[in-house]
Amino acid sequence: MHQTTRKAGVMSAAEVQALLDREFPQSARSQAIVIEEAWHGGCRVRRRFSERSLRPGGTISGPTMMGLTDFAMYVAVLTSIGPVPLAVTTNLNINFLRKPSQRDLIAECRLIKLGKRLAVGDVQIFSEGEDEMVAHATSTYSIPPPEQRKA
Amino acid sequence: MHQTTRKAGVMSAAEVQALLDREFPQSARSQAIVIEEAWHGGCRVRRRFSERSLRPGGTISGPTMMGLTDFAMYVAVLTSIGPVPLAVTTNLNINFLRKPSQRDLIAECRLIKLGKRLAVGDVQIFSEGEDEMVAHATSTYSIPPPEQRKA
Amino acid sequence: MHQTTRKAGVMSAAEVQALLDREFPQSARSQAIVIEEAWHGGCRVRRRFSERSLRPGGTISGPTMMGLTDFAMYVAVLTSIGPVPLAVTTNLNINFLRKPSQRDLIAECRLIKLGKRLAVGDVQIFSEGEDEMVAHATSTYSIPPPEQRKA
Amino acid sequence: MHQTTRKAGVMSAAEVQALLDREFPQSARSQAIVIEEAWHGGCRVRRRFSERSLRPGGTISGPTMMGLTDFAMYVAVLTSIGPVPLAVTTNLNINFLRKPSQRDLIAECRLIKLGKRLAVGDVQIFSEGEDEMVAHATSTYSIPPPEQRKA
Repeated sequence: MHQTTRKAGVMSAAEVQALLDREFPQSARSQAIVIEEAWHGGCRVRRRFSERSLRPGGTISGPTMMGLTDFAMYVAVLTSIGPVPLAVTTNLNINFLRKPSQRDLIAECRLIKLGKRLAVGDVQIFSEGEDEMVAHATSTYSIPPPEQRKA
Repeated sequence: MHQTTRKAGVMSAAEVQALLDREFPQSARSQAIVIEEAWHGGCRVRRRFSERSLRPGGTISGPTMMGLTDFAMYVAVLTSIGPVPLAVTTNLNINFLRKPSQRDLIAECRLIKLGKRLAVGDVQIFSEGEDEMVAHATSTYSIPPPEQRKA
Repeated sequence: MHQTTRKAGVMSAAEVQALLDREFPQSARSQAIVIEEAWHGGCRVRRRFSERSLRPGGTISGPTMMGLTDFAMYVAVLTSIGPVPLAVTTNLNINFLRKPSQRDLIAECRLIKLGKRLAVGDVQIFSEGEDEMVAHATSTYSIPPPEQRKA
Repeated sequence: MHQTTRKAGVMSAAEVQALLDREFPQSARSQAIVIEEAWHGGCRVRRRFSERSLRPGGTISGPTMMGLTDFAMYVAVLTSIGPVPLAVTTNLNINFLRKPSQRDLIAECRLIKLGKRLAVGDVQIFSEGEDEMVAHATSTYSIPPPEQRKA
């Protein structure tokens, strides 16, 4: 957590949040997931615990963690390169490591490649206040060339 | 589609659907996703189109397709080995290939390994009535040993 | 195996093999791996059994199967779009399903996306003459834009 | 690099190296790849640069990096749980991020799960002396139950 060396992104966390609220008005996601911090090349986001995402055995569902991963990637990419509405996920790979606790999930995303055409991120998911990772994901975003970025 | 050679599973599609409705009462998923057919080693499931899962640009969200993949795997595993509530997804890898149409999604799951400890499935997702795959996923389930299967 | 509907690629199997022999002169791979057939959107390649690739327990090593997957993707991409020397693998995901027999491996590759910038393939690996898949992989190639294709 | 907190494994790097030399006598791999350091839960291994693993464009081949990943995982698992010859890779996912330099590759492996049945590792590959990752992989090993561990 080399927080002191973090560089500001081209958009702030508040700007990304406002863009998401505007772009995804129909989604319930904006209430459950919030951006905690965002910087050039990464972010930390939180998913508030909700009984709705529980599965048998009291575990938080896989799709909940996949959605959180995708959200974290989107925030990290937007923060780092600005509003590129047509950037799309092309690949997501996730390993579920242990049963999450019934509490908030924290996802930390770090872009391990930020190229002109592709961004690749590493996402670590934790139950709040716990040390052991509950899931680990990598994901790739395809970034459209500048001339195709108009929505 | 070697439909004529499909072997019945140990649970029927209706039995799996009833189990899911019972186990996931809090989820909205049971209304949007339905089992079309299930057999030993595979299944075909449908996600009804809903504006709620749209993203900017009119595309169906990645998490919607990841949730559908996870659901299809769960149905294929349950159908093939019976009710094993503690079976859990350990890995899911998905490639998003093209923008889905604004219509129902159909996922076809085929188990390419059904071992004592691990089941691995291949999931192909299509927009209904179209030929080109919109997403392709593989996923692994860990199956608990018999003595640990009590919830 | 809709062999009758297969469309010829822009390069034939012999042309791709000649290009590989020229481009990879230092590799021992060209002797062990051969192209059996190649068509627009796919190919079938063979890796001759060799004791050198065995691991403890008499199994063929994972890296052998990963190399075979990568080779099959490369052949399918070249056959489908012609010689693009700078096309590079960006992602490979492989599931090892069962222990291969001590005999030749056959890999069948099918491109499930062939876009301007990305090609995604599905690769199934079998022990020759056997029905059950020993490994399944998906892989993504990044295709450089035309102006960058000169080596 | 919390080197001071690293716990010794149940086998030392030298013991794992000796086991590998014994188990893989036919492989050329033992000369090119060496264990630099190994501890409970991880290791760092090196692949000496060799012109044989170059591909067109002067890049080190993908299969070379996949083999290195697999080796690093094997070393980390053996170091952490002792000699389990029948442990097998079940999944490997790798993202190739940038072209490696023509020099040694260093792979750092960290086990993010070390369970009774599954071990999952995160592997970062660098060109020696450089800061940017050239490839990132995750991989899963299946660990046989104690009663099946005899070869």
